Amino acid sequence: MARSNSEALVFDVFGTVVDWRSSIAIEAQTVLSRHGVELNWNEFADSWRKGYAPAMDKVRTGELPWHNLDDLHRMLLDDLLVDCGVHSICEPDIRQLNQSWHRLTPWPDAVEGLQILKNHFVISTLSNGNFSMLTNMAKFSDLPWDCIISAELAGHYKPDHRTYQTACNLLSLPADKVMMVAAHTGDLEAAKQVGMKTAYVHRPLEFGPNCKVPMPDTKHFDVIAKNFLDLASELQC
Amino acid sequence: MARSNSEALVFDVFGTVVDWRSSIAIEAQTVLSRHGVELNWNEFADSWRKGYAPAMDKVRTGELPWHNLDDLHRMLLDDLLVDCGVHSICEPDIRQLNQSWHRLTPWPDAVEGLQILKNHFVISTLSNGNFSMLTNMAKFSDLPWDCIISAELAGHYKPDHRTYQTACNLLSLPADKVMMVAAHTGDLEAAKQVGMKTAYVHRPLEFGPNCKVPMPDTKHFDVIAKNFLDLASELQC
Repeated sequence: MARSNSEALVFDVFGTVVDWRSSIAIEAQTVLSRHGVELNWNEFADSWRKGYAPAMDKVRTGELPWHNLDDLHRMLLDDLLVDCGVHSICEPDIRQLNQSWHRLTPWPDAVEGLQILKNHFVISTLSNGNFSMLTNMAKFSDLPWDCIISAELAGHYKPDHRTYQTACNLLSLPADKVMMVAAHTGDLEAAKQVGMKTAYVHRPLEFGPNCKVPMPDTKHFDVIAKNFLDLASELQC
Repeated sequence: MARSNSEALVFDVFGTVVDWRSSIAIEAQTVLSRHGVELNWNEFADSWRKGYAPAMDKVRTGELPWHNLDDLHRMLLDDLLVDCGVHSICEPDIRQLNQSWHRLTPWPDAVEGLQILKNHFVISTLSNGNFSMLTNMAKFSDLPWDCIISAELAGHYKPDHRTYQTACNLLSLPADKVMMVAAHTGDLEAAKQVGMKTAYVHRPLEFGPNCKVPMPDTKHFDVIAKNFLDLASELQC
């Protein structure tokens, strides 16, 4: 894969760039333990995340009008707190907890890898996270994006083809000059459908040490990388 | 003006952050002199820029469907080359010249000032330039934006109120937490109309040394600054 084939790299964020599970577990513990709540915090993070795909599906099918991810997270959080028997949390603390998705910690290689890649490509998010969430997260974690592209700009959530096409249009690039980078094969398959290049990055710990993430078929994507430093090396940076 | 009043600063770009006139004059000279063309290059830049507002007005009134600024620049350039009696330029050179709006040089204080401001606020473009133009320009000139917001994301050019409102919505902030920074009073007046804070930055050389830019009524805006370092100081950074 010659470096010059792609001009921009667009990244899935949750799980690919940042370790949402550990970050959310720590933030949930910080906020909820103030109220005397004791839970398995990793399971709390998993449960919250588990609502993500079904909530977006409701938007996709029209059961819900467009809601950005902050709004969907809040709906899920309200239900989750009830399910966990937590009733005594004040509104400012619920808001702080919902905002914890704006403060996710990158995987150890992510910032250094992105800085190298930035010298050779336009690097952008292409995430279902909303625009302000991704902007605040970049500021919090020093993610050196050239720009922020969100499903919110398309008004459609990935894997809708319009989300990927919007990214290419905004970058003023044909799809085959843009490479989608993700730890999730479904995201890459959808990007491939619109003609984008694809890079799979293996993130075996996204769902915790007890959840095996199988390595996909290496022939299926243009690049397979162990992490962002490996991705930079594969792309001849 | 206490620093804490605003959470984000959004910047007009052409004239406020970058010196489009000198940059375009140099790029035009580089490209066109290869073809033996001799012109007053500053006047060439002025003439190109002069078409900008009328072209956007055609989009605003519906005479033209949505065209991004690269497209409008290209239409204007094609006409301008004819007006200047230049007929022999090849397509790649015309494209290179049109892309020169992606490579504008910042005013001497801009990068340092933005870096200081970035430590205290979310800093973004809010420009009529299209998304890829602003992204490429930031990369070219090391403008350390947290995100890129363009009229293209609103589908309406400034000073349409929807452009300003789109910026506030994307940042998930009420208008009074967002400050518009511009060297043009019309831009600031429009931002004020939707409830945004306003900072006027004086750029007396935007239209060249022979074109006086009067200082506006200092009571009319929240901050008046000589440059971005002065703006940072006024905002208690």
